[in-house]
Amino acid sequence: MSNTEERIMRPSAFPMIEPEEATRLIFENVPAPSADDLEMVPLLEGDGRVLAEDISATQDMPPFNTTAVDGYALLSADADQPRRILGDQTAGRLSGLIVTPGTAVRIMTGAPLPDGADSVIMVEFTGEQGDTLTVQFAPKVGDNVRPQGQDLKAGQPVLPAGTLLGPAELGLIGTVNRPTFKAVRRPRIAIVSTGDEIVEPGGEAKPGQIYDSNRFSLVSAVRRAYAEPVSLGIAPDTKEELRELIRTALANYDGLITSGGVSVGKLDLVKELLEEIGAIHFGRVNLKPGKPLTFVTVEQDGKRKPVFGLPGFPVSSLVSFELFVRPAILKMGGRTKLQRQVVQVQLEHDISHSPDRNEFTRAIVTEQFDPAGGGYRYTARTTGAQNSSRLLSMLGANALLRLDPGPSLFKAGETVPALLVDRPEV
Amino acid sequence: MSNTEERIMRPSAFPMIEPEEATRLIFENVPAPSADDLEMVPLLEGDGRVLAEDISATQDMPPFNTTAVDGYALLSADADQPRRILGDQTAGRLSGLIVTPGTAVRIMTGAPLPDGADSVIMVEFTGEQGDTLTVQFAPKVGDNVRPQGQDLKAGQPVLPAGTLLGPAELGLIGTVNRPTFKAVRRPRIAIVSTGDEIVEPGGEAKPGQIYDSNRFSLVSAVRRAYAEPVSLGIAPDTKEELRELIRTALANYDGLITSGGVSVGKLDLVKELLEEIGAIHFGRVNLKPGKPLTFVTVEQDGKRKPVFGLPGFPVSSLVSFELFVRPAILKMGGRTKLQRQVVQVQLEHDISHSPDRNEFTRAIVTEQFDPAGGGYRYTARTTGAQNSSRLLSMLGANALLRLDPGPSLFKAGETVPALLVDRPEV
Repeated sequence: MSNTEERIMRPSAFPMIEPEEATRLIFENVPAPSADDLEMVPLLEGDGRVLAEDISATQDMPPFNTTAVDGYALLSADADQPRRILGDQTAGRLSGLIVTPGTAVRIMTGAPLPDGADSVIMVEFTGEQGDTLTVQFAPKVGDNVRPQGQDLKAGQPVLPAGTLLGPAELGLIGTVNRPTFKAVRRPRIAIVSTGDEIVEPGGEAKPGQIYDSNRFSLVSAVRRAYAEPVSLGIAPDTKEELRELIRTALANYDGLITSGGVSVGKLDLVKELLEEIGAIHFGRVNLKPGKPLTFVTVEQDGKRKPVFGLPGFPVSSLVSFELFVRPAILKMGGRTKLQRQVVQVQLEHDISHSPDRNEFTRAIVTEQFDPAGGGYRYTARTTGAQNSSRLLSMLGANALLRLDPGPSLFKAGETVPALLVDRPEV
Repeated sequence: MSNTEERIMRPSAFPMIEPEEATRLIFENVPAPSADDLEMVPLLEGDGRVLAEDISATQDMPPFNTTAVDGYALLSADADQPRRILGDQTAGRLSGLIVTPGTAVRIMTGAPLPDGADSVIMVEFTGEQGDTLTVQFAPKVGDNVRPQGQDLKAGQPVLPAGTLLGPAELGLIGTVNRPTFKAVRRPRIAIVSTGDEIVEPGGEAKPGQIYDSNRFSLVSAVRRAYAEPVSLGIAPDTKEELRELIRTALANYDGLITSGGVSVGKLDLVKELLEEIGAIHFGRVNLKPGKPLTFVTVEQDGKRKPVFGLPGFPVSSLVSFELFVRPAILKMGGRTKLQRQVVQVQLEHDISHSPDRNEFTRAIVTEQFDPAGGGYRYTARTTGAQNSSRLLSMLGANALLRLDPGPSLFKAGETVPALLVDRPEV
């Protein structure tokens, strides 16, 4: 016990690394999906998935000459003369009707163009009396005809592997007659809160205890990184139970996120346990908030699995997730664009800051049209007190301002880089 | 049969309305959530939900004076003198230790501040020998102490009803000891494709038939509007079966989207059936693509349920969904910000367009820093041929350029409004 006490009160032995080095180490050590990480996905479940095969057109689209409008299929050469109506060509079947000089066929949008016809006139420009059609003008060859293969040619590449799938992409996969497709499996990320002071909401916090918040934040954040979060609850108290929890998590899931106790108590235990079975790539980053961020990989069943030890303060936990864990999870999910957009923003007020840390300040960035410059300007104001514990400072924040080490005051009107955290990467 | 033929070849009887009028009619007639549409949601499932109650702090946060760092709780008045170490204060329990002049207590981040102490010094600035603590400088009163209630006061409003929930919000709800919360139920939106020419992917398209794409696009798009899509497949052929399908859809779900056959065939049947049981608010909009867009509401079991009849061409279907159906579904889901951001963009090339229609052209908008103006400029290029059938024109498009009726050519360098469709509304 005295041994433990001595250990936990020693300042961190991990070298302090810069954020760029942390990012480099994470990207170097977090695996992209392998062949084992692919699965077949039905079209109705495809939103937000990453395609893992090249999709090509199997036939021309449209597969036959067709009409873009409701009207009459006819011959241009008949000019503005009346035509005799032969019958109907509806969508979905071949009517067998053949348009010859002096005749026309009623045709519905999407129906195949009858043999013989070279153009379609819209119903709005026609009259019908008995079986005689009159036209207000002479159609030109090709009018309102969508020729076979206009949109896609058989064999044409449609979507490359790696594409993030949304409405248009899933429609295209249906069009080329694929009810399912090969996709990257969503990474399954286990999440556990640590700390003797942490109590499940709905339970009873005794004096000295508080309710868990990080796990709920992280489950939501992992889901927004297109992965599947798995909550493992609050970590057990004993080393044996914690060892078993970590083993089980790494055997069953693709990665693990812990929050809390990064410098003392439980997570020292986590680090100790992980050192038995894995490699600690870093344990301290020159960040504010987020300094104790820890990154470990464990080789398990032939796969490399990342463990992220996030700080316990809610803001530190979420900011370090956003900066380092989210890009890692995107990489694991087969995404290729991993980083948020960074823009230059003008400060609306003075901001004091730590002179020797890379500070990521929560801010509300707004975009305003600048009639003088003819462009847009981004301006930023912070979300009030920036304590690492004050989750309220994350509310409404759509950006993290990066305040590099240096002056202890950034003045109103100065320009700094801002990571826009509420925009997708598209 | 001849009666049917005559009907289906008559031009649309619906007046052509402007897009703004269509939006007004939709917002006027699509219901916001009522008390029946709320449900209790567990924290782990809360991402993307809309809060339906006000959440307040039930106690101070932190609930006790605590430390922001690992170090020693002590008295400022002892200045830089050595202290005698009384023992440990770990997180999660009360140690019962009392700091008196000349003494100190080891303390871990998040632990309650022992009685008597008025400050904490970080372990980095200390030394320990036997039970004696030395400090490198005199701490000031309050150093590294997080006073009770610093982040939240008991009773303080935290989140108002109507808030869209993400990582920070869900963490806050946990913090205030709420394992579940009242939220708006996700609207359940049924989706059906119509058209005799439409075949399920994986089936066999006969001559004149094509594979369904719209339903897969719309399921994905509905999911991205924070709603729950329900695919009802491809509509049956007969009027009786279709009546039964519409009745069942409206009895079981909050809304219905059909695609295809808006001007002829099946959807005339849909409109006919809907006129029996509901009200058609409009059946034609001055749009390109999307002109035949139809909006109907049906009173069912005391609730008003919207039906959107989208055109069959894939691009028309998706563009009219984006412009009109998405905001309606957001409203049904309790969202208050319903419209995408619109910015002014400069055209990278000439664009020809319909002189009498409101055209929404798919485009790739990029944002560039303009060192001269000190701001950002948006520029736009279109995604190739803009046929309504060419789903490829949606690929990679992150904006819809609005080209109002007027000149038939917009020139490179001209500025037009663009709806940014790949940004969330935050």
